[in-house]
Amino acid sequence: MEGSPLEGHSLGLMPWFVAATQILGLAAVIMTGVWMGHYQGGFAWDGSSLEFNVHPLCMVIGMVFLYGDAILVYRVFQNESKTTVKILHAVIHLIALVAAIVGLAAVFDFHSAKNIPNMYSLHSWCGLITIILFCIQWVMGLTFFLFPGTAYSLRALYRPLHEYLGLGLFILAIGTCLLGITEKLLFSIKDTYPKFVPEGILANALGVVLVGFGLTVGYIVTRSEWKRVASPEEEALSMHFKTLTEGDSPGSPEGS
Amino acid sequence: MEGSPLEGHSLGLMPWFVAATQILGLAAVIMTGVWMGHYQGGFAWDGSSLEFNVHPLCMVIGMVFLYGDAILVYRVFQNESKTTVKILHAVIHLIALVAAIVGLAAVFDFHSAKNIPNMYSLHSWCGLITIILFCIQWVMGLTFFLFPGTAYSLRALYRPLHEYLGLGLFILAIGTCLLGITEKLLFSIKDTYPKFVPEGILANALGVVLVGFGLTVGYIVTRSEWKRVASPEEEALSMHFKTLTEGDSPGSPEGS
Repeated sequence: MEGSPLEGHSLGLMPWFVAATQILGLAAVIMTGVWMGHYQGGFAWDGSSLEFNVHPLCMVIGMVFLYGDAILVYRVFQNESKTTVKILHAVIHLIALVAAIVGLAAVFDFHSAKNIPNMYSLHSWCGLITIILFCIQWVMGLTFFLFPGTAYSLRALYRPLHEYLGLGLFILAIGTCLLGITEKLLFSIKDTYPKFVPEGILANALGVVLVGFGLTVGYIVTRSEWKRVASPEEEALSMHFKTLTEGDSPGSPEGS
Repeated sequence: MEGSPLEGHSLGLMPWFVAATQILGLAAVIMTGVWMGHYQGGFAWDGSSLEFNVHPLCMVIGMVFLYGDAILVYRVFQNESKTTVKILHAVIHLIALVAAIVGLAAVFDFHSAKNIPNMYSLHSWCGLITIILFCIQWVMGLTFFLFPGTAYSLRALYRPLHEYLGLGLFILAIGTCLLGITEKLLFSIKDTYPKFVPEGILANALGVVLVGFGLTVGYIVTRSEWKRVASPEEEALSMHFKTLTEGDSPGSPEGS
């Protein structure tokens, strides 16, 4: 890191942990794809159970893999400007949200075609709570951290809550996936599941991989030594704007 | 807090959050008791489904409520000596483990009486991972933090991992409970669950309360302003022992 603004900021084993998250995250996506594509018959958009299969795949891609990566950008891109990383964070979360909306449309459409009631299960309750709070977090994040007129004091007030709730919802999204896995197995292979059939083992292993992904992402973002440090330029810019704007309203996003 | 070693250390809203955890935790225990005691027929130890009912109650008491309280002692008892709080932490965890063992005995005994295979579900996989790592954490915690001969450097090395994994396993225990709720509902009221019967709503609400308990405990222990600060006596004692023991082996537990 010679000559970089982060000289002396040692990231130690972080790159290995980040690599582990990507392997676990991709493994989760592939395992969901194999489960739905191979064992559950593939994908379609026709109101059949093949349309349902779009749901788990989209949710794992959006609410787990992309969500996790959106959190990680602040650790991975330590040398990019804070604004760039913030925009990347917001954009990845937006793509995650689009994937989640497609996934939700798939399951509601499937339920509607088959006359299955909606929103009765714990899986659906947890999922609804997650998606609603996720949307609120996204809009609040945009308003507080990317809208240039927001006061520093407000940013500083909301930031710890945004970070805590962001990680909390990520974990809740993973928990919701585990509930979905259990529901799907008990609906489709209830009689053979206790016999350790390959489909059951694959789905259980998917659950364990999702837990591993969550634990690894959580470890990276909560480890204080790996937190992003402000570059001297950002520090200076921040001070400059703090001085310029007596009213505590930054043009620069640093520090929030 | 006049005259206390923590003068000037403001805990702000923390007591309210701690009160919220106790309300949520007790609500979870009561809701599990009502679900198993009223809707599922009560408790017994005779190999029947009434013996199974002991399982959820013991796991919620041990692996959720007591586990959460064991984590919280470092925040709640800020004026007690570090050693006292450590012993309390270890003892509550031990009681939690005993409750969990009774809960596990109940389900394995029930499975054995009914010839139901063990360990095939994602719930059981997550539960096994949680309980094994919990036992390892307990023994490691005792060895590193309560055994007086352990070197400071080893304590400092293990402490962040103990804290992270401790919170991680607490969350995984809650996730495992949610999976257990879903399994039990799909095994016992699969046909009426989609009709929003009271038992289904109670069990779903229990899941939401468990999530709320986890989020609140997690918020309290991760908020840096509420972390325990060493009292001047502990600080002095720690320095004294550090000086005395050139070999980095503390007689005092402070700082770890």
